[in-house]
Amino acid sequence: MFSLIYRFYFHLPASRIHYYLTRSITTSIYPQTVSDILKTKPIGSSVSLIGSLENVRKLKTQYFLDFIDGSSLNHLQVIVSGKNLPDVGKLNFGSTIRVNGTIVRSTHPQQEIELQAKQIDIIGSCDAFNYPLKCKTKHSFHFLRSCEQFRARDRMYGGALLSIRSELFYLIHNYFHEHKFTHIQTPCITSSDCEGGGETFKIKEYYSQSTSQMKEYFDKQTYLTVSGQLHLEAAASGLSRVYTLNPVFRADKNLSRFHLAEFWMLEAEIAGITKLEQLLDIYKHILQTVTANLRQNCREQFRLLEEYDIKPEFIDQFFLDKYSIVTYDEAVGYLKKSDEFQDFPKNGDFTRAHENYLCQKIMNNQPFFLINYPKEVKPFYMLVNDDECTVANFDFIFPSVGELSGGSLREHRYERLHKTVELLKLDDELDWYLDLRRYGSMPTAGFGLGIERFLIALTGIDNVRDVIPFPRYYQHCMS
Amino acid sequence: MFSLIYRFYFHLPASRIHYYLTRSITTSIYPQTVSDILKTKPIGSSVSLIGSLENVRKLKTQYFLDFIDGSSLNHLQVIVSGKNLPDVGKLNFGSTIRVNGTIVRSTHPQQEIELQAKQIDIIGSCDAFNYPLKCKTKHSFHFLRSCEQFRARDRMYGGALLSIRSELFYLIHNYFHEHKFTHIQTPCITSSDCEGGGETFKIKEYYSQSTSQMKEYFDKQTYLTVSGQLHLEAAASGLSRVYTLNPVFRADKNLSRFHLAEFWMLEAEIAGITKLEQLLDIYKHILQTVTANLRQNCREQFRLLEEYDIKPEFIDQFFLDKYSIVTYDEAVGYLKKSDEFQDFPKNGDFTRAHENYLCQKIMNNQPFFLINYPKEVKPFYMLVNDDECTVANFDFIFPSVGELSGGSLREHRYERLHKTVELLKLDDELDWYLDLRRYGSMPTAGFGLGIERFLIALTGIDNVRDVIPFPRYYQHCMS
Repeated sequence: MFSLIYRFYFHLPASRIHYYLTRSITTSIYPQTVSDILKTKPIGSSVSLIGSLENVRKLKTQYFLDFIDGSSLNHLQVIVSGKNLPDVGKLNFGSTIRVNGTIVRSTHPQQEIELQAKQIDIIGSCDAFNYPLKCKTKHSFHFLRSCEQFRARDRMYGGALLSIRSELFYLIHNYFHEHKFTHIQTPCITSSDCEGGGETFKIKEYYSQSTSQMKEYFDKQTYLTVSGQLHLEAAASGLSRVYTLNPVFRADKNLSRFHLAEFWMLEAEIAGITKLEQLLDIYKHILQTVTANLRQNCREQFRLLEEYDIKPEFIDQFFLDKYSIVTYDEAVGYLKKSDEFQDFPKNGDFTRAHENYLCQKIMNNQPFFLINYPKEVKPFYMLVNDDECTVANFDFIFPSVGELSGGSLREHRYERLHKTVELLKLDDELDWYLDLRRYGSMPTAGFGLGIERFLIALTGIDNVRDVIPFPRYYQHCMS
Repeated sequence: MFSLIYRFYFHLPASRIHYYLTRSITTSIYPQTVSDILKTKPIGSSVSLIGSLENVRKLKTQYFLDFIDGSSLNHLQVIVSGKNLPDVGKLNFGSTIRVNGTIVRSTHPQQEIELQAKQIDIIGSCDAFNYPLKCKTKHSFHFLRSCEQFRARDRMYGGALLSIRSELFYLIHNYFHEHKFTHIQTPCITSSDCEGGGETFKIKEYYSQSTSQMKEYFDKQTYLTVSGQLHLEAAASGLSRVYTLNPVFRADKNLSRFHLAEFWMLEAEIAGITKLEQLLDIYKHILQTVTANLRQNCREQFRLLEEYDIKPEFIDQFFLDKYSIVTYDEAVGYLKKSDEFQDFPKNGDFTRAHENYLCQKIMNNQPFFLINYPKEVKPFYMLVNDDECTVANFDFIFPSVGELSGGSLREHRYERLHKTVELLKLDDELDWYLDLRRYGSMPTAGFGLGIERFLIALTGIDNVRDVIPFPRYYQHCMS
């Protein structure tokens, strides 16, 4: 019956569709990997593999090679007699080889199988002296920053960290798919300077290679986006639950361990939310679900980080039953009672120092929501509360990281929004956004979560430059 | 046992992790949706919903509202008597309302349930006269381009197209996750002009709001990336199988239906591939798996597009057992025998007109691989074949779309690569990339697939501007 409907509507060969959906995964079309072999242990099989050398030892006339190919954190031991070797001098740490041989049962107690090589070809030799990565060395994150192009080859960096990062992205997509969100790809190039503050990259012009001149491309001033939120609100007004997971850009000169010029942001927007508490519950649910799955799926990778003394000290805190809620006024009260911050200004914004004080001294190193800021401190799009002074917003403060997220209900009342936007002289630029509230305005709420800061909290690594494969920051763009 | 290991390694409260991983999905934290109600049919339940009006009819003293909220392609019928209505004049198409009431069995034959409203509040009224979207109107893609901010609210555009697009992204991530690829987020800002051609956006400078001046930010010339491939090769040299699904940028003035200034590209890179045929097999496997799943998961959405006479004419072609392979030389032979292209130049590149001719006249409207181009036509990073004249590359040509993808084996031999890069005077800029081949060079192969062109082939929509939520092209950046 299904296949009949299917054929009827789509004019597709149903048997073929069925074939593609039910066939077993054809791993055989991919090159064979160390991971496959360690898992299936095909004793007696001939294999042909391409990979690198993690270590080379000589014992009498035989060479023992620790062979890796990026598919596993473990190596496959390759044994080869000297006479089958093309150029022993080139069998260095870091060299890339092709090895043909047979999988045999190992006599070595630490491994079940090994590869008896019949032929070895050196594909990419490696001058071990000048190669920045070194054999049997635990390269530190700090050191690896000096050779970004090779970081993925480091067992800890590539095998553990990049693998955790990849899984995190997957789990986020998975969560939102499961909860019926539509994934919207908000644009990087924008004519709307969303936050109305901060430093933005300008990209009005482009470089023409044919004439070596700068030229106009767009018909108006454009920037690299600092947030996809306004575009996401447009989508949420029709699709109810939407999210984006995109690069965003800040031309920030801050060289602290929390700042990048290009970083990744998860932003979600949900229609029909009219109470801040509901947004906080959803936010907590997302953090807890993603974190729990990540810890479960990446056990081996987290274990490897621990070997480098990298531990997420506060990870348990994600799983608290409740995250405390502190209003802006309460927080200011705490600061004014302190020794350091007695002169906190009226309607001032919190700096990292304030957040740290509150988190460590008042909240006992537990994460918490800071809510209801004065409207003067926050952007134009946040919903003004009934008190007419504060907005329905939250910042989520996490120990060791500081602000992990910000979110709010959105100002959906056209008259108020229009007035604010007019005062900011943004009504031309944001006319398209005002339209969303001019016609059938839908109450929405949402938040943004900086992925690199989240990764710091999840792993215990202490610098955002170390958790993104190719970091960009002030005066630094290696590749 | 598992929980013991878990606790031991991660110092986490195992019972709590277990709780988060096993609890049923807590949909109750999200606002209730039309989709939930149509599915669960909770007759007798009180509900409170926020959504919009798709249609309003009056029958005697009762109003019948077609109520939608973006969660379903179907509406929920709301019935309300005039006396419970706040302001009948504002109950227009496009208005946003909150409705409280009870789900009852419907007496109407076309629906099982309806919502008997006790109270209706108008949250966002809609001036139906000036609102670009109109009641009971099939808005064309062409018309919707004139009001990008509202497109997601259109049933066909938001409910069908954006939903198909979202599912496509999900299925791509799913495929690569299942096949053990690491998802690498390659950077948008780059100092490496990968393709060595085409127009690139320059972003060396940024605009400082505090001083209203242009300033330098990076220590060298930077661009918006046209491809993440070089960075992906760095990752593949350590991680074996990697992919990226990112925005890329071309400052192309071409206003054709195939060109955008910002679009999305899937790029994959696989280590250990030394034969072009193996890359072609993997590429075919990806296309077929993703396409089959998309057709299966989005049946309802494709059906809705058909109501607009939008049909993917050539979709069956994705499921061919074999995609034909045509060498560059063979293709030139076909062109020279034609009436139109007899004077095709030696080592010329194919234009869309050539591709169309080959696809329609020679290949009988079936997709095919064009392989082994002269090295002069293609970028520096492609592997030179043994004939010393051609490279191990492919372009994939699909009927109605033209070039859907390009890919190749990569030149992994350092001496050759260095020579080419030096001739192009790119050795400074690409020194980091040369390093990958200088030290332990790993043979890799990969391809790029333009997502918007893929969506055209998958849906039958004929313009890339219509398959991306917020299109950017020459002189156009609406928001």
